[in-house]
Amino acid sequence: MPKTIEITELILRDAPQSLMATRMAMEDMIPACSDLDQAGYWALECWGGATFDSCIRFLNEDPWERLRTFRKLLPNTRLMMLLRGQNLVGYRHYEDSVVERFVEKTAECGMDVFRVFDALNDIRNVRSSIAAVRKAGKHAQGAICYTVSPLHTPAGFVEVAKKLLDLGCDSICIKDMAALLKPQPAFEIVKGIKETCGQDVPVHVHVHATTGVTMVSLMKAIEAGADCVDTSISSLSLGPGHNPTESLVEMLEGTGFETRVDRRKLLKVKKYFNTIRPRYREFLSNITGVETEIFESQIPGGMLSNMESQLKQQGAANRIEEVLAEVPRVRKDAGYPPLVTPSSQICGTQAVFNVIMGRYKVLTGEFADLMLGYYGETIGPRNPEVAGMAAKQTGKAPITGRPADLLKPEWQDLRTAAMALKGCNGSDEDVLTYAMFPQVATKFFATREEGPRNLGKDPKAPAAAAAPAADSGKGPAKAPITYDVKMNGHTHRVTVSPA
Amino acid sequence: MPKTIEITELILRDAPQSLMATRMAMEDMIPACSDLDQAGYWALECWGGATFDSCIRFLNEDPWERLRTFRKLLPNTRLMMLLRGQNLVGYRHYEDSVVERFVEKTAECGMDVFRVFDALNDIRNVRSSIAAVRKAGKHAQGAICYTVSPLHTPAGFVEVAKKLLDLGCDSICIKDMAALLKPQPAFEIVKGIKETCGQDVPVHVHVHATTGVTMVSLMKAIEAGADCVDTSISSLSLGPGHNPTESLVEMLEGTGFETRVDRRKLLKVKKYFNTIRPRYREFLSNITGVETEIFESQIPGGMLSNMESQLKQQGAANRIEEVLAEVPRVRKDAGYPPLVTPSSQICGTQAVFNVIMGRYKVLTGEFADLMLGYYGETIGPRNPEVAGMAAKQTGKAPITGRPADLLKPEWQDLRTAAMALKGCNGSDEDVLTYAMFPQVATKFFATREEGPRNLGKDPKAPAAAAAPAADSGKGPAKAPITYDVKMNGHTHRVTVSPA
Repeated sequence: MPKTIEITELILRDAPQSLMATRMAMEDMIPACSDLDQAGYWALECWGGATFDSCIRFLNEDPWERLRTFRKLLPNTRLMMLLRGQNLVGYRHYEDSVVERFVEKTAECGMDVFRVFDALNDIRNVRSSIAAVRKAGKHAQGAICYTVSPLHTPAGFVEVAKKLLDLGCDSICIKDMAALLKPQPAFEIVKGIKETCGQDVPVHVHVHATTGVTMVSLMKAIEAGADCVDTSISSLSLGPGHNPTESLVEMLEGTGFETRVDRRKLLKVKKYFNTIRPRYREFLSNITGVETEIFESQIPGGMLSNMESQLKQQGAANRIEEVLAEVPRVRKDAGYPPLVTPSSQICGTQAVFNVIMGRYKVLTGEFADLMLGYYGETIGPRNPEVAGMAAKQTGKAPITGRPADLLKPEWQDLRTAAMALKGCNGSDEDVLTYAMFPQVATKFFATREEGPRNLGKDPKAPAAAAAPAADSGKGPAKAPITYDVKMNGHTHRVTVSPA
Repeated sequence: MPKTIEITELILRDAPQSLMATRMAMEDMIPACSDLDQAGYWALECWGGATFDSCIRFLNEDPWERLRTFRKLLPNTRLMMLLRGQNLVGYRHYEDSVVERFVEKTAECGMDVFRVFDALNDIRNVRSSIAAVRKAGKHAQGAICYTVSPLHTPAGFVEVAKKLLDLGCDSICIKDMAALLKPQPAFEIVKGIKETCGQDVPVHVHVHATTGVTMVSLMKAIEAGADCVDTSISSLSLGPGHNPTESLVEMLEGTGFETRVDRRKLLKVKKYFNTIRPRYREFLSNITGVETEIFESQIPGGMLSNMESQLKQQGAANRIEEVLAEVPRVRKDAGYPPLVTPSSQICGTQAVFNVIMGRYKVLTGEFADLMLGYYGETIGPRNPEVAGMAAKQTGKAPITGRPADLLKPEWQDLRTAAMALKGCNGSDEDVLTYAMFPQVATKFFATREEGPRNLGKDPKAPAAAAAPAADSGKGPAKAPITYDVKMNGHTHRVTVSPA
């Protein structure tokens, strides 16, 4: 009897995040939901990560509404979200009661599986959220950020897995956001977890495709005992995205492993997203092939396009190679953090600053905090010279305790501030939205009534198609754009010009 | 001690053939030669396949001159060519003395390794060419066309390998032109060959990337004992092309296998072809992701774009799905040939005819010949009804012997005919060029003096970049094009309009 390998499908969250800067509108996902729900996945990842931010920043979509809609349209499949531990879906640490409220509300809206990670693999930063998930009676999946450094070893990752299980996690995920996980370590880590923590501990493996090696890593992880792997339907796969679901299914034929997904459903979903993808061409990643240089720079897929766009804004698009070379130095100075949100942005932006302004001439506030322990502990020691500059520049002292312990109860203040905003509906969800992104939420509450904005639904698409190809600048359209906006069942044609 | 896995690099032949319709000009390959030569490959595949045809049909390049140039620029690495057995690099069977002369001249021009295959795996069709390679003192590699059908089994492929070794082959290649080779059969076939034919028989594996599973197949083939694998530098890889060389190198880290190529040289070559690729955008394959539907249709990468263009010429581009569904039926009727040049074209074109004109309303001459045994034996019986139609339409009787045995000595006639042509230089090479493609050669001899035509060197490139993207029609430009043509050291600007 072949062992059944389960699949978590990424096409509703991480695939559009990695390939089209998280710009896909809910409207464009809805038509695929029925087939996805019936395809036989272990879970559909559909929320969290950067989607919360993107919903209110770019799409004028209420993220909570998006989640409720998914729950309605996907009644037969587990919904999964990616939660950044004490950061939730924001970019700072939140006080424990906010963490608990966020998880509780998310569970209420229909979330089944919370994949929880901390960018530094600092276990203290995931403790509260995992406890909250357990309290809500949902599946807590502890994720280990995979990275490569002189200090990271398979045995070390197994240690992290043990600690996550001690916190009560229902399963473990090896999360390889930069496609750095090669076949041999994939095999060794999965085997190590199974041998050390028990063969019955469910192990999931999440890899990106950027380096072209991780399909093989999935195979070796499966051979080592992995139970579930993350893939994405082929029409939104590869490059900085993920390995194609259909290929994973075919690959296993005859190997003693098999999946239980319905190939015909996958094909329908593939064809559907083939029609959607070109509409977001302005946001598509420049990278379509493989990039093995990432084994040096370690920049994750989702970060590369952001970094390119930062450089372009500075008129320094041609200095990407220098920045890629600077990132590993910055990372070493910071004690070898894995590079994943937010540490990828923090180290990436500091590397951009170092290249443009001279090394550590200017520290970003976030990088200073990272150097002073305000994001948690790193595996390696931090460069004391740079830490000294951070302390001097910010006037802050370095810390060694759990960062969230420094925070005072903040829920009431957040509620009061949110309630004062025009358009805030007074719900806990709105308070949480405000808590995540105070400035963006303020704008969003004021415009929410206008309804979702679909950046892919551009009536000027044929003209856009004639724009210069792959090597040209990406980014939001400069010219006025006309949208069809549905509001209370009526469709309004709205023309939007950038301010 | 890790076992060293050797690599055959495909970027000079099969990669441009699969990804840009064999249109890359020699001029654009020359700058990469020095790095390729020093990178540490087992071989550089650089000639044969469709390059001979393309050189004289589209590029006004003398293919023999191309080969001599490669030899000069690549003094340290084996040169490999792909030879279609009794078809050589043409599309019909040649009489044995032509086969021998072709191999002899090719060896003289500097070829080291002849990868010889027959589209039907009919061993009688490779006997003469393998004997000729041995006579010339060169490396004869017998290639088995991998395919999937109710009749094909790993044991059957091992049998073919045995027969190839009995002919005196120095090595065996498993040739998977359509990316159908899944990991498990890859493992079983390589293991079978090693166990049955000897562990010291060098086994090479050639796979395309189209289905997204074959990087894993390479890993499993290596685990089973494969000695050398075929890959292509990442900037010309994936889609209907091949797995990226750099990824293969990285993938093996820590597995007990390693390569001996120089990563820095690979990176230089990658960057170079990144600059060349966009210049051929008109010829680039529409397919950039993966296509697992090929497990049904079995159309190899190189064939897909041709078939799309055939349909477009008939104004039936929208019927590609019907054709893809028809190909397996045509193939079954033909006794399950592998689909590779020329059987892929023959079955593919017949499928196009069947869809457009009704099933078997019109048989192409080639398909009739295939049904009557004029290409050799197929693994399965051919549909007698369709074979009857073929006999009736052509007035030919079915045959069971070696097709080339029907041919009379033809060298003198070919020589006489070639010599009569304007521009023929009287060399054996020119006679062979004429023998391969009489009509195209006639035109080529007349225009050869004008020197190579570089279809990627288009001064109107910025305008071309503004053409509609991925889903638009591909093909040669319709408007007049200006070329810089080098002739006897002088550069002439020439404007060419299609007739």
